Amino acid sequence: MALIVQKFGGSSVANVERIRRVAKRVCDTVAAGNQVVVVVSAMGDTTDDLIELARQLAPNPTAREMDMLVTTGEQVSIALLAMAIQAQGVPSISFTGGLAGIRTEPIHGKARITDIDPRRICAELADGKVVIVAGFQGASDDGSITTLGRGGSDTTAVALAAALKADVCEIFTDVDGVYTTDPRVVKAAQKIESISYNEMLELANLGAGVLHPRAVEFAKQYNVTLMVRSSFNLNTGTLVEEEAKMEQGRIVRGIAHDTNVVKVALVGVKSRIGNLHRIFQQLAEQSVNVDIIVTSVVHDECSDISFTVTEDDCETAIKVLEGIVADFGNPDIAVEDNLAKVSIVGAGMISNPGVAAQMFGALADAGISIKMVSTSEIKVSCVVDREQAHRAVQVLHSEFGLDAVEEAIVAGLNGE
Amino acid sequence: MALIVQKFGGSSVANVERIRRVAKRVCDTVAAGNQVVVVVSAMGDTTDDLIELARQLAPNPTAREMDMLVTTGEQVSIALLAMAIQAQGVPSISFTGGLAGIRTEPIHGKARITDIDPRRICAELADGKVVIVAGFQGASDDGSITTLGRGGSDTTAVALAAALKADVCEIFTDVDGVYTTDPRVVKAAQKIESISYNEMLELANLGAGVLHPRAVEFAKQYNVTLMVRSSFNLNTGTLVEEEAKMEQGRIVRGIAHDTNVVKVALVGVKSRIGNLHRIFQQLAEQSVNVDIIVTSVVHDECSDISFTVTEDDCETAIKVLEGIVADFGNPDIAVEDNLAKVSIVGAGMISNPGVAAQMFGALADAGISIKMVSTSEIKVSCVVDREQAHRAVQVLHSEFGLDAVEEAIVAGLNGE
Repeated sequence: MALIVQKFGGSSVANVERIRRVAKRVCDTVAAGNQVVVVVSAMGDTTDDLIELARQLAPNPTAREMDMLVTTGEQVSIALLAMAIQAQGVPSISFTGGLAGIRTEPIHGKARITDIDPRRICAELADGKVVIVAGFQGASDDGSITTLGRGGSDTTAVALAAALKADVCEIFTDVDGVYTTDPRVVKAAQKIESISYNEMLELANLGAGVLHPRAVEFAKQYNVTLMVRSSFNLNTGTLVEEEAKMEQGRIVRGIAHDTNVVKVALVGVKSRIGNLHRIFQQLAEQSVNVDIIVTSVVHDECSDISFTVTEDDCETAIKVLEGIVADFGNPDIAVEDNLAKVSIVGAGMISNPGVAAQMFGALADAGISIKMVSTSEIKVSCVVDREQAHRAVQVLHSEFGLDAVEEAIVAGLNGE
Repeated sequence: MALIVQKFGGSSVANVERIRRVAKRVCDTVAAGNQVVVVVSAMGDTTDDLIELARQLAPNPTAREMDMLVTTGEQVSIALLAMAIQAQGVPSISFTGGLAGIRTEPIHGKARITDIDPRRICAELADGKVVIVAGFQGASDDGSITTLGRGGSDTTAVALAAALKADVCEIFTDVDGVYTTDPRVVKAAQKIESISYNEMLELANLGAGVLHPRAVEFAKQYNVTLMVRSSFNLNTGTLVEEEAKMEQGRIVRGIAHDTNVVKVALVGVKSRIGNLHRIFQQLAEQSVNVDIIVTSVVHDECSDISFTVTEDDCETAIKVLEGIVADFGNPDIAVEDNLAKVSIVGAGMISNPGVAAQMFGALADAGISIKMVSTSEIKVSCVVDREQAHRAVQVLHSEFGLDAVEEAIVAGLNGE
């Protein structure tokens, strides 16, 4: 008998009909001889609706009261799902994050999980029940209700899987799994059978969107086997685990792209040791999330510093820079929006130094100019014009042999 | 500095505008130099909407999951009200029933409060904060979320007032206080300045509707001073306390009526000792709430037994009787609906034995026939035809000198 943690997001439980479908899925998993713990998010737009109510009442509500407010969303979901499962004849019980034993830092809005006491869940599982746990939330030591911030429900599921030593943590989504790239951009995109934590982490961070990076990080740390799969069908999804099978020896496993990229440049910074530290420290203090950083020395006394941020952070970043440029010889501040980041990801790159060059070549051949470059051991990212982003993804998907072979596609179409 | 517990019902917090108005009221009370604990219900129809969602998913959801579900309603209210109060510059913090220290029996749907640990509330009050507590809910010893059942928010407010030794517990409603009778039925109905617990209890039980009997019972037990007042104006409301001032020596303080009355009769029950016990034990086991019981011996071997129930319970009552009539000589089951109960209430009745006779006389003079009678030390109830109920209330209100004197009404109209 396997122990499975299943996580369903807000759109999977957006209405009564979908909750009933999730309940059916859970009951089928039980009928197949498994113990099941289910993690759910708030129904559909509930959280946004609650935040809007709060906004109407207070310009700047405290994070504590926001947590008190929005955690009701998941609480509604767990109760309704437990009822729906009971209605299908399977015993079930629901727990809020706090009641499930999820302890967090005493911080509101973005608490980290400090500990999970799974005894209560274990007792209910042993009693033959399906246990439903509210995602995204926990309780601090004094019992205050906290939330985990973005990607919270994925993190709850992975953390519970770790604490319960579950056999697998299934993340249900509206696609069949993790794809070599966005199928809306590249028709020949293929579902990846298995992928390593590090690769998934790069793809998640790069905006693939199916799985929150924080949850992947957690899964990697506790060696939790993840399965990303569709809530609409029974297809096997994508397995995320430590040793991904080296599928056909491919070096590049997936192509990610992110169109929310703005480049900010300081042109003509007076050279001084510690410049970078002082500039990016100021940005960090204002919570500006900087992605790629490029710096080049123009001549001995002068350098240019460029970095990318999301559109949301752009205004704050400029304000920060305007406040400090006087200390740096008054360089010009140049902003370039309408950019995108295109990345190739694959653990095999480490031992294949020619991959970046191959990427640059393919883009150049397609007439796509590269504005910035950033590399890690398992990925290379290029910043390009936003309008060329999709073309870049298509070119790279093909260049690195990720397009589904024609026979496979034909076979798929014939239903073989 | 006084400590005041204020309770606002669902209609008082039904939308953002009303929540803001409640926040203003609370802040005004703080500005007047008081410490304030606020108890709120769920916004408007939230609870009904949640119950409807549950009904769509499960014909018979467990009480535990229903509690998990509906308690989110008050949790939303407390968070929003705390934010609204903060937005008006007054520090505020919200607690669910469990976090506020309200312990209940480990029963779902209708738990009784077993204990309140007010330390956390006291600490926040000492810290200068307004404390907002979710009404209607608590937690059992193992932390499970429970609800108090009907009248729960009133009960929460009174219980907190008792535990905190508050100076007064203010119950806000959409009328100015407790009236001598329903002002929609009798135009000359007057607001009662003060009333005793027992009188209020009879009026509450008899359907006056402003205050739940359970909360009055609790207030009586712990000697909590209640003030029923309007959330729409600053008028002094009705004070409910142990020693009500004997207003102008009136014997009858109020007239209540209840139009949800069905009479069920067993005609020709074979006499045997223990009949009543066995019949009403069976009804109690099926949770049929019986109000007035009348029994008469027709002759030595045969008696008639009648009782009243609400329309909701009528069907169950008939089923129970049908199942057991064979044991009682197969009496006929007769049901009479379209009835109402009209009651006069006043602590002064104890020492005035002619009051019941005066009531019967007044009703007879008005051509209203009395179907059943029930008395207690401080009330007399008569069951009459439903269509005559309002007329009966008007006749009795006038008979017992409760109509506002004409000069007073004229003065009121002139705004003097």
